[in-house]
Amino acid sequence: MRPRTVHLALGSNEGDRRASLERAVQRLSAVPGVEVLRVSSFRESAFVGAGPAQGAYLNGVAELRTTLPLPALLAVCKAIEAEAGRRLPAPKNHPRPLDLDIVLAEGETFDGVDLVVPHPRWHLRPFVVEPLRELGVDVEGAPRTERPLLVDTPGAIAALASAWTANGCVVGLVPTMGSLHEGHASLMRIARSECDRVIATIFVNPLQFGPREDFAAYPRDLGGDMRLCAAAGVDAVFAPPVAAMYDERFCSRVAVGAAAEGMEGAVRPEHFSGVATVVARLFAITRPHRAYFGEKDAQQLAVIRRMTHDLGFPIRVVPCPIVREPDGLAMSSRNVYLGADDRRASTILFRALSSAQHAFARGERDRDGLLARARAVLASEPRALLDYLELRREGDLEPLPPGPIAGGRMLVAARFERGVRPVRLLDNMALVEES
Amino acid sequence: MRPRTVHLALGSNEGDRRASLERAVQRLSAVPGVEVLRVSSFRESAFVGAGPAQGAYLNGVAELRTTLPLPALLAVCKAIEAEAGRRLPAPKNHPRPLDLDIVLAEGETFDGVDLVVPHPRWHLRPFVVEPLRELGVDVEGAPRTERPLLVDTPGAIAALASAWTANGCVVGLVPTMGSLHEGHASLMRIARSECDRVIATIFVNPLQFGPREDFAAYPRDLGGDMRLCAAAGVDAVFAPPVAAMYDERFCSRVAVGAAAEGMEGAVRPEHFSGVATVVARLFAITRPHRAYFGEKDAQQLAVIRRMTHDLGFPIRVVPCPIVREPDGLAMSSRNVYLGADDRRASTILFRALSSAQHAFARGERDRDGLLARARAVLASEPRALLDYLELRREGDLEPLPPGPIAGGRMLVAARFERGVRPVRLLDNMALVEES
Repeated sequence: MRPRTVHLALGSNEGDRRASLERAVQRLSAVPGVEVLRVSSFRESAFVGAGPAQGAYLNGVAELRTTLPLPALLAVCKAIEAEAGRRLPAPKNHPRPLDLDIVLAEGETFDGVDLVVPHPRWHLRPFVVEPLRELGVDVEGAPRTERPLLVDTPGAIAALASAWTANGCVVGLVPTMGSLHEGHASLMRIARSECDRVIATIFVNPLQFGPREDFAAYPRDLGGDMRLCAAAGVDAVFAPPVAAMYDERFCSRVAVGAAAEGMEGAVRPEHFSGVATVVARLFAITRPHRAYFGEKDAQQLAVIRRMTHDLGFPIRVVPCPIVREPDGLAMSSRNVYLGADDRRASTILFRALSSAQHAFARGERDRDGLLARARAVLASEPRALLDYLELRREGDLEPLPPGPIAGGRMLVAARFERGVRPVRLLDNMALVEES
Repeated sequence: MRPRTVHLALGSNEGDRRASLERAVQRLSAVPGVEVLRVSSFRESAFVGAGPAQGAYLNGVAELRTTLPLPALLAVCKAIEAEAGRRLPAPKNHPRPLDLDIVLAEGETFDGVDLVVPHPRWHLRPFVVEPLRELGVDVEGAPRTERPLLVDTPGAIAALASAWTANGCVVGLVPTMGSLHEGHASLMRIARSECDRVIATIFVNPLQFGPREDFAAYPRDLGGDMRLCAAAGVDAVFAPPVAAMYDERFCSRVAVGAAAEGMEGAVRPEHFSGVATVVARLFAITRPHRAYFGEKDAQQLAVIRRMTHDLGFPIRVVPCPIVREPDGLAMSSRNVYLGADDRRASTILFRALSSAQHAFARGERDRDGLLARARAVLASEPRALLDYLELRREGDLEPLPPGPIAGGRMLVAARFERGVRPVRLLDNMALVEES
């Protein structure tokens, strides 16, 4: 590798701090492929952050010239930290005899599971900025790592995701149609807690809208969506225009058989093939390790699970619980279109499902009895025009065998058509022993 | 990382060889995270291999204890080689003042673009084996790197391919139905020349055979196929049973519109959807960078290009020229079923296409004239029962606009039915200015 200048932040707040830093510089000088050009003066900084009470840090910055790739330099730094008596893996926010961080590497970037260069927070740390300035680094003009990145071409998001994977990250994907609400935020937070990098996609997919459906009118708000993604800790937002997803000669389709039949598939004939196609395309482009979908769209989830399994994507499809308004209405981007009266009436779906769930928890095992109970609740609300109410096997949503049931998922779809514009709402609930 | 024992081969055949090796050991000792436990005696070995005439090597093996990940250790070794005056990147088979190779790392394996551990040829090199034995290593029981690997589950090939990609390799995929011949070998050699790792898949895909076609009778010969793959330098062969590719509830299909219509699509209605589905599945599982397909099946190639583009797989589809028998017959696994008379008659396809190509090269630009010329040649062979003869646009094989043509591809399919069993043959040829 060609030699580049690298700036390394040094810190110590345990033991003989000055001796630790000086010894670290000496050990760095001994590494083949590393030349220490200059070292800033060392300065005191009070410990800030969570963790046990602890002493002040002594900090400085070393300027290196090195031919080592950044991950190799990181490995050497960890070995030097270990020599200094630091326990590895180091507990967060505990005192440490030596802390070495790669801060900047000329224009080079690296974005991996245990190394991000430029260091994401270097410019917020006076004990890094001041020594850099002392060494003559243009700290205002120096590169920074921005999050979330906004990407609008398949090639760019593919390159980003594949670099993350190559650098050891577990990548999570949260496909959405934008107009994000707390339900989406909960998917992102679950992804954030399980993955090293999170990609949210925002794309209103024309393939999954029927000719008489609301593609053009579907709510869109990229600015608000970006703020929600930033707050949820998303690393990249992929928001392509339609032409970047489907060129004029696009003619491929992914179809899923049995899982796409009945219920939504009966009401919206091409819907699930549109969903399976766009999700397959997003999977092919971004190659995530895990992908997050809400249980709210339970049949969509079953279709995506089947497609993922059948086409062999090595991706874990993670179902995420429905997020509800305080009165029980499942969150949906289309809820904004409910008039006040329909909004009040819409809780009937949750109440109907809950009544079946309570009956199941009390011991009712007869399918027709459970369905009749929910149907009676729904019938009490004349604004709710029922499309279907079904009780299916949990997971793949296949029909349940005859006889008493051991569990399952009840799914409902109803239209509310007396408001400003007609709105169709879905909801579902698992029937389990303990709710 | 936990400390492991690593064996490093040292060699020098330029300058003060002993001083180089001793200096290398000293430099290794200075590296944080590396402890040199023992060093074998150094021994002479004559230079073997291509390259300029050069002096004998002095060789030995060092036994290290290290916490560095293997790629970091490799980077440090390269830096030590550079300090010793070695030009990097080093020209192959030239004299070198210092050569450091990671040979063994306890049970650890690594398979990357510039590092394979265990070293693929360590056991064939007496100047490595003898010093290892001197250090007490059980050289017969020590691990080796085998190629090609034979893998029969999607999970195993996905893990292998993704480790290669993570380690910086460009991965090439050569999907086949087995019964391999020189045409397949040429795909593999092209892949070998362009990629760091080559996966060949051998799978007779039931989805692409019609109910009256020869799925059960399609020729199969895994032993012969493995030998051909080994000779062509394939790194892994993925040969799954049908149940590992399609479970009993498999119900997804990938369909490609216009590209799959007409020609083979007209004769074999579900064929291209079966092809697109299995190739999408192989792409999803193995995630290669490049995939190699023969131009012999030109419409299949167009379908796969379209599917790859539409679903967004970041995979370069590489078309490979038709390989022909000396008399011009395009190689095909089904050629073995041709009786002697049909075999002789089968060259009519090549002769018909060649006559059109010669006419084009001589200036003929009229579509009907070119087709009539080829059709006349075909008509001279009564054993050839023509299914279709078409002239299409090069690449996507769409119909050509009216008027004189600037080029294109002529495609033919014919049946030969007088032999032991009926055989259907395809061939095609680009019409170009200079043949």
